[in-house]
Amino acid sequence: MKEIILTTFDWVPEVPRGYVRDIRASWAMEEAGLAYRIEGVPFKNRNKEHLENQPFGQVPWLKDGEFTIFESGAMLLHIAERSENLIPNEPIGRSQVIQWLFAALNSIEMASVPWSLFKFSNDNEETPGRENLNNFLESRLQRMESVLAEREWLVNDFSIADIAMSDVLRLVDRFGELSDYPACKDYVERATARPAFKKAYADQLAHFAMADRFNQ
Amino acid sequence: MKEIILTTFDWVPEVPRGYVRDIRASWAMEEAGLAYRIEGVPFKNRNKEHLENQPFGQVPWLKDGEFTIFESGAMLLHIAERSENLIPNEPIGRSQVIQWLFAALNSIEMASVPWSLFKFSNDNEETPGRENLNNFLESRLQRMESVLAEREWLVNDFSIADIAMSDVLRLVDRFGELSDYPACKDYVERATARPAFKKAYADQLAHFAMADRFNQ
Repeated sequence: MKEIILTTFDWVPEVPRGYVRDIRASWAMEEAGLAYRIEGVPFKNRNKEHLENQPFGQVPWLKDGEFTIFESGAMLLHIAERSENLIPNEPIGRSQVIQWLFAALNSIEMASVPWSLFKFSNDNEETPGRENLNNFLESRLQRMESVLAEREWLVNDFSIADIAMSDVLRLVDRFGELSDYPACKDYVERATARPAFKKAYADQLAHFAMADRFNQ
Repeated sequence: MKEIILTTFDWVPEVPRGYVRDIRASWAMEEAGLAYRIEGVPFKNRNKEHLENQPFGQVPWLKDGEFTIFESGAMLLHIAERSENLIPNEPIGRSQVIQWLFAALNSIEMASVPWSLFKFSNDNEETPGRENLNNFLESRLQRMESVLAEREWLVNDFSIADIAMSDVLRLVDRFGELSDYPACKDYVERATARPAFKKAYADQLAHFAMADRFNQ
């Protein structure tokens, strides 16, 4: 069996640590029991080879035999295909997991990441556009609150949709913004209490801590 | 064969017309030669049944036999599975189309839609967060410009990834913001020149124009 390689940065500043998106893929592979190796590419000098693997100069990407995949959503789907416990085999459940995977990345994260750009820069100007952006995120969280109040995981058993959704909500929780959304908060706690998340999270912190040692 | 039903709003204001996301699914079905019917749900009163089909109170959703699917990305993948010309059969090409589909929705649209919220509200305040958001979109467009300068479609032949990506870029183009990105602009023109897009676009305008007549 060919080795799976997950590439992330060789170093990042403190702020993104624990939140770099390689955690979505490593978490899924821990859940699936797939063996993989982490590689690092320069954070400070993103070269041509980097852009060939990840055209936006971001991380992560995944190499699995003939496959080289960027985009965390595509990686999650690929890993799920190789596992037995991250997406249902029957077509309806499978379709529902895929739709919730897209929902995490296109309905929730589309609001949360841009909103976080304002939060990270301590920008509290109440301009009309900012108000629209805040309302965009809040309306989505309100709906997720109703959805998550009624279920443990998005589609029956835990799946790649929950990896994506809980990781997206984790960033909102980082700013304390889930305090009005207890079902969302409980869901994030339930997901991140899983041993596979804890392992992937600890590994990411250790990977960047190691880089600090070499850079000193 | 069971009928495919694509549900959109029964009416929307002028601004979103031609840009409501049911066009992604109808465009794909026109490309695939699949027969479908359009249904409308109230724009002004989004009831419980609506939320059961689309938990964010948005449109569209697709009913195809036992499948009910929201999220345009998930619909595109579903339609591609039923067609012979929207995603390759061989696994590498297939995986690349899926990654570019996610790229359109999670790397580009995550920047463009929030940016459009500021543009639609004529908000030109140059706050730090806004600057980050503008840079976010610009850095993504710069990278897409390099990618699209070298190819006609994202992965070999035209695919669902091109439907998603060109529709996402169309919103940016609407504000004249692709003028510095000629390869992106050409790509949007190439995609929207396809008969299947023209048909889906004309049908969407006609659908909402009909609603105006009934509302008078």
